[in-house]
Amino acid sequence: MPDTSPRPLVRTPPVALTGPVLVVGAGLVGTSVALALVEAGVEVLLSDHHPENVRTASGLGAGRSAESRPGAEIGLVVVAVPPDALGGVVAEALQRHPRAVVTDVGSVKTQPLLEVTAADRDVVHRYVGSHPMAGSERSGPLAATSTLFQGRPWAITPHASADPDAVETVEALVAVCGGTPVWLTPEEHDRAVARTSHVPHLVSALVAGRLADAPEQHLALTGQGVRDVTRVAGGDPALYGQIVSGNATAVVELLGEVRADLDRLIAAVGGGDRGTLVDLLDHGVAGTRAIPAKHGGPPRAMQSVWVSVPDHPGELARLFADAVASGVNIEDIRIDHDPGRPTGRVELVVDATRAEHLLGSLEEREWVTHR
Amino acid sequence: MPDTSPRPLVRTPPVALTGPVLVVGAGLVGTSVALALVEAGVEVLLSDHHPENVRTASGLGAGRSAESRPGAEIGLVVVAVPPDALGGVVAEALQRHPRAVVTDVGSVKTQPLLEVTAADRDVVHRYVGSHPMAGSERSGPLAATSTLFQGRPWAITPHASADPDAVETVEALVAVCGGTPVWLTPEEHDRAVARTSHVPHLVSALVAGRLADAPEQHLALTGQGVRDVTRVAGGDPALYGQIVSGNATAVVELLGEVRADLDRLIAAVGGGDRGTLVDLLDHGVAGTRAIPAKHGGPPRAMQSVWVSVPDHPGELARLFADAVASGVNIEDIRIDHDPGRPTGRVELVVDATRAEHLLGSLEEREWVTHR
Repeated sequence: MPDTSPRPLVRTPPVALTGPVLVVGAGLVGTSVALALVEAGVEVLLSDHHPENVRTASGLGAGRSAESRPGAEIGLVVVAVPPDALGGVVAEALQRHPRAVVTDVGSVKTQPLLEVTAADRDVVHRYVGSHPMAGSERSGPLAATSTLFQGRPWAITPHASADPDAVETVEALVAVCGGTPVWLTPEEHDRAVARTSHVPHLVSALVAGRLADAPEQHLALTGQGVRDVTRVAGGDPALYGQIVSGNATAVVELLGEVRADLDRLIAAVGGGDRGTLVDLLDHGVAGTRAIPAKHGGPPRAMQSVWVSVPDHPGELARLFADAVASGVNIEDIRIDHDPGRPTGRVELVVDATRAEHLLGSLEEREWVTHR
Repeated sequence: MPDTSPRPLVRTPPVALTGPVLVVGAGLVGTSVALALVEAGVEVLLSDHHPENVRTASGLGAGRSAESRPGAEIGLVVVAVPPDALGGVVAEALQRHPRAVVTDVGSVKTQPLLEVTAADRDVVHRYVGSHPMAGSERSGPLAATSTLFQGRPWAITPHASADPDAVETVEALVAVCGGTPVWLTPEEHDRAVARTSHVPHLVSALVAGRLADAPEQHLALTGQGVRDVTRVAGGDPALYGQIVSGNATAVVELLGEVRADLDRLIAAVGGGDRGTLVDLLDHGVAGTRAIPAKHGGPPRAMQSVWVSVPDHPGELARLFADAVASGVNIEDIRIDHDPGRPTGRVELVVDATRAEHLLGSLEEREWVTHR
């Protein structure tokens, strides 16, 4: 097993990436990788099942069609195709480019590795999976940007028989794209994303499903909380179906934990066992506090400041200008959504040690604030 | 059973509220009600288990201590105490003020009604429950504001034997506070808040609980989605324990639905049944679309515009000023939280028909936008 303990983030400079790099799949993520490589002076070739994606990505300056250089000696292949196709495309790339390192940017890591190993275990040492934590709300090359990965976690998931050189090549890719490397085994990666992404998405969908069944009267009482809980459930079912299916083992294991807690919860609420109910709620509070802070490092204590804002856009801009004048950095903003409200309520989340200063400063400028 | 069909929101002017109104419980909600009443010229008397809350609320101009007018003929009592104490305090108010209408602002409605009825069914006709959908993130009179309820849904929950005059008195209270009345039976109310508030909160806590158990490595991959899903789980366990316990029947029924879906989900993911998995995800998407739009009425199509913003406060204010200059109303804002990112990514949610205009306008002002 590779060493999966956290390594220091500042390391010796990674090996240089020598092109051409072949990007297979010119969607949002593939084209964004290509743009970052081109900006770094690396030659990029593009291929895609849909030729129009290659034309679009090329037009954005993300490299040129692989067909234009049929004999090119590829050093690195980056596979950025939908989850269902991943294993097959990686295996094919290993065959077709016998000297290349192959990586992918897919959301699951164990299943493709199994497929690649089954296809030809003699070449799998040149494959090292990876996974940038970057937006998937949009799709297609038009949404791409070379800065998509800047400062974002990018999992690198070497398997036991991966070449060290291949791992370094993928590390160089992450460095060029500006990602923050996080080393995990494929199995740990899949457990991590099941926990931090797939299971939250699925459970959000179950809560949202209750709203689909709701009488209209019930929905009149909808507040901000349930909107937050269900937001991710709006994602593309076909894509998430692929992602979740590709990570079935880890997802089922964690869903089993959720079910065990849900059974305890139902028994506690139904049986009037307040202690168990509060224990489960306390455990949830502990979970929200375990989430790393925006800038990495230990979570900082945050505090919310609420401000009443007349519901037209000029007032929001004025609020921001005044918040800036206070010198307090705003970590998060939420706008209250309750239907029909003539004045909105804006929540500004700031470092707890700065909240009083912000309140005083806004009040001096005649904002109506609420602690 | 009272008529629970939606009534038109524009009605004949409600009966005038004649004071003094007694507010029992000078916390956030009670003091906010008191402030709104005082602003409307109604005399308010305050009482609280903790005398310092009455002093604080009085100091804010929310009325004066009930002890200062021991013989006052109370027309309306508004009970704003924690869920566990609600039924007892309402029953006591009905006894102590034999001519008064009594309402409460608690989060659950069936359980207190049962307690009040059990205490003395001959006076329950003067009790009409209600529930404003207003912030509970904060507490205490210092957080109070007369505008807390403006435009927010405020459930009015008459039971079968409630006096029509008592219902009108509570309607007058809602009108004075600027709330948007929503009429529901106590039972429907409790099912509605179980669906839109209590169950989302509990399930959020179960997802957050998985993070409390997580290896630190897993948390390095945390993104915005799970932060949204788990945000409400940060709420006070003691308070939510009371609320959920008071609504056990409706909560257990809905949690049973969640468990049935969870069982289907586990079977589908574990058994490779992609069709059922996608069905459940589709149902979740339908739920997110059922949530009413910000300004009431049918949900409007929204579209997100992403903008790269250097992570210091001046840039955010400049973005807002430029967004305002575009003339497009911003319905929601989200700031990207990924750790260590030197440029933030701000999501502006706007009417879908206005998104292209906003993008063009921001691009003209040299913002880096992403569709």
